[in-house]
Amino acid sequence: RSGLSKTQQIRLISVESLKPSDTFARRHNSATPEEQTKMSESVGFDSIDSLIDATVPKSIRIESMKFSKFDEGLTESQMIDHMKMLASKNKVFKSFIGMGYYNTSVPAVILRNIMENPGWYTQYTPYQAEISQGRLESLLNYQTVITDLTGLPMSNASLLDEGTAAAEAMAMCNNILKGKKKTFIIASNCHPQTIDICKTRADGFDLKVVTSDLKDIDYSSGDVCGVLVQYPGTEGEVLDYGEFVKKAHASGVKVVMATDLLALTMLKPPGEFGADIVVGSAQRFGVPMGYGGPHAAFLATSQDYKRMMPGRIIGVSVDSSGKPALRMAMQTREQHIRRDKATSNICTAQALLANMAAMYAVYHGPEGLKVIAQRVHGLAGTFAHGLKKLGTVDVQGVPFFDTVKIKCADAHAIADAATKSGMNLRIVDSNNITVAFDETTTLDDVDELFKVFSGGKPVPFTAASLAPEVQNAIPAGLVRKSPYLTHPIFNSYHTEHELLRYLHRLQAKDLSLCHSMIPLGSCTMKLNATVEMMPVTWPEFANLHPFAPTEQAAGYQEMFDDLGDLLCTITGFDSFSLQPNAGAAGEYAGLMVIRAYHMARGDHHRNVCIIPVSAHGTNPASAAMCGMKIVTIGTDAKGNINIAELKKAAEANKDNLSALMVTYPSTHGVYEEGIDEICKIIHDNGGQVYMDGANMNAQVGLTSPGYIGADVCHLNLHKTFCIPHGGGGPGMGPIGVKKHLAPYLPSHPVVSTGGLPAPEKAEPMGTIAAAPWGSALILPISYTYIAMMGSKGLTDASKIAILSANYMAKRLENHYPVLFRGVNGTVAHEFIIDLRGFKNTAGIEPEDVAKRLIDYGFHGPTMSWPVPGTLMIEPTESESKAELDRFCDALISIREEIAQIESGKADAHNNVLKGAPHPPSVLMADSWTKPYSRDTAAFPASWLRSSKFWPTTGRVDNVYGDRNLVCTLQPEVVEEAAAATA
Amino acid sequence: RSGLSKTQQIRLISVESLKPSDTFARRHNSATPEEQTKMSESVGFDSIDSLIDATVPKSIRIESMKFSKFDEGLTESQMIDHMKMLASKNKVFKSFIGMGYYNTSVPAVILRNIMENPGWYTQYTPYQAEISQGRLESLLNYQTVITDLTGLPMSNASLLDEGTAAAEAMAMCNNILKGKKKTFIIASNCHPQTIDICKTRADGFDLKVVTSDLKDIDYSSGDVCGVLVQYPGTEGEVLDYGEFVKKAHASGVKVVMATDLLALTMLKPPGEFGADIVVGSAQRFGVPMGYGGPHAAFLATSQDYKRMMPGRIIGVSVDSSGKPALRMAMQTREQHIRRDKATSNICTAQALLANMAAMYAVYHGPEGLKVIAQRVHGLAGTFAHGLKKLGTVDVQGVPFFDTVKIKCADAHAIADAATKSGMNLRIVDSNNITVAFDETTTLDDVDELFKVFSGGKPVPFTAASLAPEVQNAIPAGLVRKSPYLTHPIFNSYHTEHELLRYLHRLQAKDLSLCHSMIPLGSCTMKLNATVEMMPVTWPEFANLHPFAPTEQAAGYQEMFDDLGDLLCTITGFDSFSLQPNAGAAGEYAGLMVIRAYHMARGDHHRNVCIIPVSAHGTNPASAAMCGMKIVTIGTDAKGNINIAELKKAAEANKDNLSALMVTYPSTHGVYEEGIDEICKIIHDNGGQVYMDGANMNAQVGLTSPGYIGADVCHLNLHKTFCIPHGGGGPGMGPIGVKKHLAPYLPSHPVVSTGGLPAPEKAEPMGTIAAAPWGSALILPISYTYIAMMGSKGLTDASKIAILSANYMAKRLENHYPVLFRGVNGTVAHEFIIDLRGFKNTAGIEPEDVAKRLIDYGFHGPTMSWPVPGTLMIEPTESESKAELDRFCDALISIREEIAQIESGKADAHNNVLKGAPHPPSVLMADSWTKPYSRDTAAFPASWLRSSKFWPTTGRVDNVYGDRNLVCTLQPEVVEEAAAATA
Ligand SMILES: Cc1ncc(COP(=O)(O)O)c(C=O)c1O
Ligand SMILES: Cc1ncc(COP(=O)(O)O)c(C=O)c1O
Ligand SMILES: O=C([O-])O
Repeated sequence: RSGLSKTQQIRLISVESLKPSDTFARRHNSATPEEQTKMSESVGFDSIDSLIDATVPKSIRIESMKFSKFDEGLTESQMIDHMKMLASKNKVFKSFIGMGYYNTSVPAVILRNIMENPGWYTQYTPYQAEISQGRLESLLNYQTVITDLTGLPMSNASLLDEGTAAAEAMAMCNNILKGKKKTFIIASNCHPQTIDICKTRADGFDLKVVTSDLKDIDYSSGDVCGVLVQYPGTEGEVLDYGEFVKKAHASGVKVVMATDLLALTMLKPPGEFGADIVVGSAQRFGVPMGYGGPHAAFLATSQDYKRMMPGRIIGVSVDSSGKPALRMAMQTREQHIRRDKATSNICTAQALLANMAAMYAVYHGPEGLKVIAQRVHGLAGTFAHGLKKLGTVDVQGVPFFDTVKIKCADAHAIADAATKSGMNLRIVDSNNITVAFDETTTLDDVDELFKVFSGGKPVPFTAASLAPEVQNAIPAGLVRKSPYLTHPIFNSYHTEHELLRYLHRLQAKDLSLCHSMIPLGSCTMKLNATVEMMPVTWPEFANLHPFAPTEQAAGYQEMFDDLGDLLCTITGFDSFSLQPNAGAAGEYAGLMVIRAYHMARGDHHRNVCIIPVSAHGTNPASAAMCGMKIVTIGTDAKGNINIAELKKAAEANKDNLSALMVTYPSTHGVYEEGIDEICKIIHDNGGQVYMDGANMNAQVGLTSPGYIGADVCHLNLHKTFCIPHGGGGPGMGPIGVKKHLAPYLPSHPVVSTGGLPAPEKAEPMGTIAAAPWGSALILPISYTYIAMMGSKGLTDASKIAILSANYMAKRLENHYPVLFRGVNGTVAHEFIIDLRGFKNTAGIEPEDVAKRLIDYGFHGPTMSWPVPGTLMIEPTESESKAELDRFCDALISIREEIAQIESGKADAHNNVLKGAPHPPSVLMADSWTKPYSRDTAAFPASWLRSSKFWPTTGRVDNVYGDRNLVCTLQPEVVEEAAAATA
Repeated sequence: RSGLSKTQQIRLISVESLKPSDTFARRHNSATPEEQTKMSESVGFDSIDSLIDATVPKSIRIESMKFSKFDEGLTESQMIDHMKMLASKNKVFKSFIGMGYYNTSVPAVILRNIMENPGWYTQYTPYQAEISQGRLESLLNYQTVITDLTGLPMSNASLLDEGTAAAEAMAMCNNILKGKKKTFIIASNCHPQTIDICKTRADGFDLKVVTSDLKDIDYSSGDVCGVLVQYPGTEGEVLDYGEFVKKAHASGVKVVMATDLLALTMLKPPGEFGADIVVGSAQRFGVPMGYGGPHAAFLATSQDYKRMMPGRIIGVSVDSSGKPALRMAMQTREQHIRRDKATSNICTAQALLANMAAMYAVYHGPEGLKVIAQRVHGLAGTFAHGLKKLGTVDVQGVPFFDTVKIKCADAHAIADAATKSGMNLRIVDSNNITVAFDETTTLDDVDELFKVFSGGKPVPFTAASLAPEVQNAIPAGLVRKSPYLTHPIFNSYHTEHELLRYLHRLQAKDLSLCHSMIPLGSCTMKLNATVEMMPVTWPEFANLHPFAPTEQAAGYQEMFDDLGDLLCTITGFDSFSLQPNAGAAGEYAGLMVIRAYHMARGDHHRNVCIIPVSAHGTNPASAAMCGMKIVTIGTDAKGNINIAELKKAAEANKDNLSALMVTYPSTHGVYEEGIDEICKIIHDNGGQVYMDGANMNAQVGLTSPGYIGADVCHLNLHKTFCIPHGGGGPGMGPIGVKKHLAPYLPSHPVVSTGGLPAPEKAEPMGTIAAAPWGSALILPISYTYIAMMGSKGLTDASKIAILSANYMAKRLENHYPVLFRGVNGTVAHEFIIDLRGFKNTAGIEPEDVAKRLIDYGFHGPTMSWPVPGTLMIEPTESESKAELDRFCDALISIREEIAQIESGKADAHNNVLKGAPHPPSVLMADSWTKPYSRDTAAFPASWLRSSKFWPTTGRVDNVYGDRNLVCTLQPEVVEEAAAATA
């Protein structure tokens, strides 16, 4: 014994053991090495590597992945240090640039309790309404903010940004007029990025966009479907659009107005002018600028066009007890149902940011918002007044809300002087400048501006001294008279305690990754690690204007460059664009790149896009947006693309073939062996291969789109690369391309961008998003994930994700048929269980199983996609074996509950599945008439006894809600506020 | 109409309206001006001011309060900017100082989800066990960490810091030996601050402290009760205490060991040496150094002495259904029951930090902790090895864990060179330096140190190159062999998802201010605003060593100075000490200041302390700790101090009178009219007035302790000044004094401190806390609160707090007798409702009402203190009228439920009150045998239907738990971990 200790005493120290111990990969990848072996053995392999070798086709398997930077992975504290270093390279100047982006005071209580709170940011899109009533209420609040302020009755629950919202509105105009009028006019008082996005988007619709001065707008061609104007205009002017709208309507032209929510607290709302569609950004309602995003955009319209609205819409319905309950309304409009006929390709939107903006309105209330607006307006007025006194420049005599337009001899000289004082102005052209004020501007700032404009001479007054002589500049006819935000929710929670509790009451209703795994097939709900999230709310990342001089954003730029490089290594591509704000936006952007490539080669006719039936709805919807002709091909019995059919289709369309859209591994959860052959067939017939990167979590480090043969691919950073789902957004959908496509990557009219790394020449196909690098603020999440994991950690993640899926499939296969497997009998990183049989044997549908899973404390998997009547399960690498087992236990237990029905022991119509989910109000009701016990309903698994997540409503009735569409707060509908303030 | 718009258009702009709009006071003070008027009217006053005039005695009312800084109050964003500025003045150097404070990697998931999460930090002390099971489990984990690592079976749930823990252990030794042996020996290998605290504390016990070299320790006097040694020693040495303990025990001397948790993962635990009591700090288990605190200290002992342990102890019991449930055990030891006979005066401890430390152990697990320890040890070894090679200094040849002791020619020169490289070393004396390593040290750091020690010459090796030749320096006999942290909880949650969910599962069981008001009389559970909390986790505040050169902490020092000034203005005092870490510590410190004052004047005999019966238990307990003789005086029928009795007592003790301890407004919730007279009586009889500042929330801006006539007072910053309660700490109890007492304010042996502002001369009475400025890290909370509120906001807070209490008392008075009122019939900021009558009429006790309140979603008020059979309600200014009304509605509804019993409609033993609280498991059980309905049990108020907080256990049995004492995790007891990992 003392000998043993002796040995221990002289144990030598290894360098390895002295390296920092706060490594990250083992915190993210949940299965321990021992568990990995155990799990591999249970699926018939002696190690995880042999499982992977058997699963990923040899022909596409890469040797290994190596990063030129971060290959080993940083530890958590090294990562924080690195991000601090990057942050210090960003210079936060005061921004007076405007153009749709304004500094805002994010209320700290919202920052901490929503934006920095995994209870909110790790939620999934509220498809399971019964465990999503909190964010559904908040999104209903958002819709109410939008409808109340715009004066139009219908709003969606966010779009990606103001520019794409305008493009969606343009598409609506086209649709309203059934595609018969092919001109869309954009007034030149719109933001340049809005104009460019619409121009790019119009291309695909075969629509002609005409930009015109307001006064020159001309509908005489008879071919105009719509017109877009901005209110207030991009250079600040506040115009009365009364006559304008009348004139447009008289010509059968629909009017779209881009507007500003803060201004609308003081200005006559667009709805009162008769605008048909109103769009804009809710950013300045308490969402940081973040060098471009993410922010929630909005789109409101009239009742007439509600079924043509793009995006998700929250509506009121009832639950199984007849109590009011919320859920997503009119989903039949959306791409996952209507595919290429959908109103839009949008899927992931900006739910988290919409919630922040809604809560900003809840916190300030109508009066508080008006105080802010009047202050901003007053500061602008004081500034304009002072400039007139100074007399050094020529203040334009138009009414304004927050933006003052100035004619001057040398705009650049003035802007440079401002920069020297830490302030950014907008240079409109060499003789025009605008100065936009916001909530954070102070009287001192105005004094600083006076100094800039006085050209070094002493300023004989201060902003404060001027204020009393300044007059409100809003024309009488444009002063808002109609009330807004009158619902109790906007008039009750104005103190921090009240708002805090409202936020937590809502949060408590919603299941998130803080509770249990959310195994949504095709959605990759993995860990959103805290270290990844921390930089997002640092001011050096959060408070930069997207159009600030790039030298002020050196930290961001360095990160973009490195992220571009890392993503190229991961995907096997040559260049990346960080502009698209979601997967669907990436698809559209990628297809447009392909289109531009064909065009550049004179192949204008190449417009056929082959898409397998199993593709996600966004694929056909995106292709449709590019004006492509869609040729659908089927799958074989094993779920693989029917290569013979593909080949036939490709050859038949040889002359006009533009692209194939293909998801890999397939949406069926299988590594198709023929993928390299498929790529070859497409290339041989003149087409390009677009790979949908949604399933990238099964590729990283094992293979890559580039290696397989794809030409372009989007990545869902909000799936594979850890951006949290936020209850339905934000997301990021950057696209990677092969060298020959790199020149066509999108640019931006204000800050020119392109591929990262930059290709030799650039012929950008247009603009895809309002901000040059999309939602830059959330890129640190993916960047830190990659940098902390290193190449090995990421490769392990893919392997463990695959292992986890196979482990679960194995545990479940005796209870549920597992649909589709690869040649070696294994599945990829997700798999499908088939419930179709239960329809006959027990009257059970996938929805019943999903709802019953709620009683077990789980969020149901992807339902009935890609195959109706099935559930698709994607566990990810971040779930521990214990958690996978719990989920399997739940499903196996439910299978036994189904067996009870099959055997007649349980009633076919009145059983635990049909009755699910069971909220406390039902479980505790005095009368209980179900044929099963309360205990069986509430506690079907042992772990629920020590801790259970309760659904707050019974099953929500979707049909009722769509029949009785209510999409804003109604005093009688949402009782909560009333109760809370009783 | 157009005329009207015209007016609107030319409305002028006021300077006022251009000031920043993100003001704070209106977010903190919840009642709007309109509500204030309404509430005032309902209590019979036309305005809040006339209510206040009628309530606060004219004789003590101050005109107004004015700050020399921040008088107007900063807005939220101005505050953040100001704190960033202060933060930038703190320089975060690498610390190798050690001495009980080590840098640590706070796991980000713990930082965000506990320390930055109001769901954890706004919890109250877990007196209501049924809505506190989450933090109770976490504290049980903490106790298990302590007992497992120290090798002793009993631990408390934290003490204030290591130094005071040692002093508590000293007091225990004194008690164990029944005060018969009056010498306590402290080995000189203890931290200097520990030694000084014990010396100061010993004074009051009439104990002689002898400091001695280990080898010179001598028990031959026969008068030694205990001995304190440190393991590892303050200069790093790791000694075998086997023989030492045997020898002490042979002389009947108890052995206290101060130790280090991280070291104990590698070292033989003190319990195995036979130590009787073990103390230390859990700081390096993931709690930031914070320039001194807050951190959780621990104290462990054997079964024999468990009833002598100080502080709160969590234990296992059963609930009304017989299921395991946790609660605070053996409360009969504590000051609130035993008063001057208590084991200690401690009340508020360090729950939040204990939870962080426990979670750090949960996250790393036994293996992970050992890896960290081995790494730290390895780095220290590598450093020592390198120094020997360099040969420039003399590395001391003692075994060490993390701290290397070095003899050198000029310690200051070396330390200065280190400082130039951004590193702080410990200068022991002019020829000795120690270098302590920690979790955050890297190989690069060791290389930097080599450079410092090489005196500018090139270092011919690197730490990495040396490592392979370095040997473990722990002697064979001291290598730990016993297992630790074997419970599943420490072996399951090692990935971020698992820990995140564990944290959230626990959080979901606990009611906090995120849910509803917590109207704890005498505890002032007000808003803990987010902006106040934000700087606490900034690295520039969090990562400073308390003994770093003060010039590196210029931001902190500036804040201390300003906070001292502000607190002086608020209290009417002349100087403040920021050292005491809780209210009770402040009491003790304040009394010791008074004692020192008397001593300095030759009044050694003045040792009588008059304390009213209504005083908080900490008052007599603190007086006892100062060796004072307590004379208790009564109150009259109106709850006021019996002035005649007081006068008699003062005069009778004239010659020996030391102090009066008095709480103002009284603990009965009344502004006693005679308070100025009372102060005069005490002064006339040679005594000093100690005012307990717990009720300061009723004074700020209206009167002040100094103005009233007190000589010294502590402030509970965790009550009046917004430090959150954290589920039972942290707190801060700074003391303010009049000029004549200022010289005696505590100092510190390592960094000398004293009054703020500093008095002309200083004769410090000793040391009160381990860190010079106590829990410096949480001082920004109070500082920002004061700075954002400004003098008017703070005064309004006091007024509204009083208004709220009066409003509630009015609403409740027809339902419950309201005990005690001032001369005008009003109450102060809190009030007492009398439930004693219900004992006879319905068999109902205060506990029944408190438990039934849980069913209504509320935390019960203070129970049976200061008057048995009552509830004391303190609403604070931060609760909205809506929330006050909800709470009143609940109490009124409960009164009706009591009436049902009184009238015989409800059963006397089996009713909703006796059955409360009702957890889901009971409410959903298949069988329901109660005479009332499930619905009545679960949903007694309308607001519960839309959102309800569920208790997780039935009523917890306190007696059972104390009879069957279990204070650590038992595999069979805590099922959760098992379930979660099943
Ligand atoms: C296969 C596939 N492609 C594309 C998308 C669309 O991505 P996004 O929601 O980011 O627009 C999804 C979304 O789930 C998907 O599963
Ligand atoms: C009147 C009074 N004095 C003193 C204290 C002790 O303060 P602390 O818990 O900070 O030690 C309390 C605590 O509730 C109290 O109510
Ligand atoms: O969100 C999806 O439609 O998959």
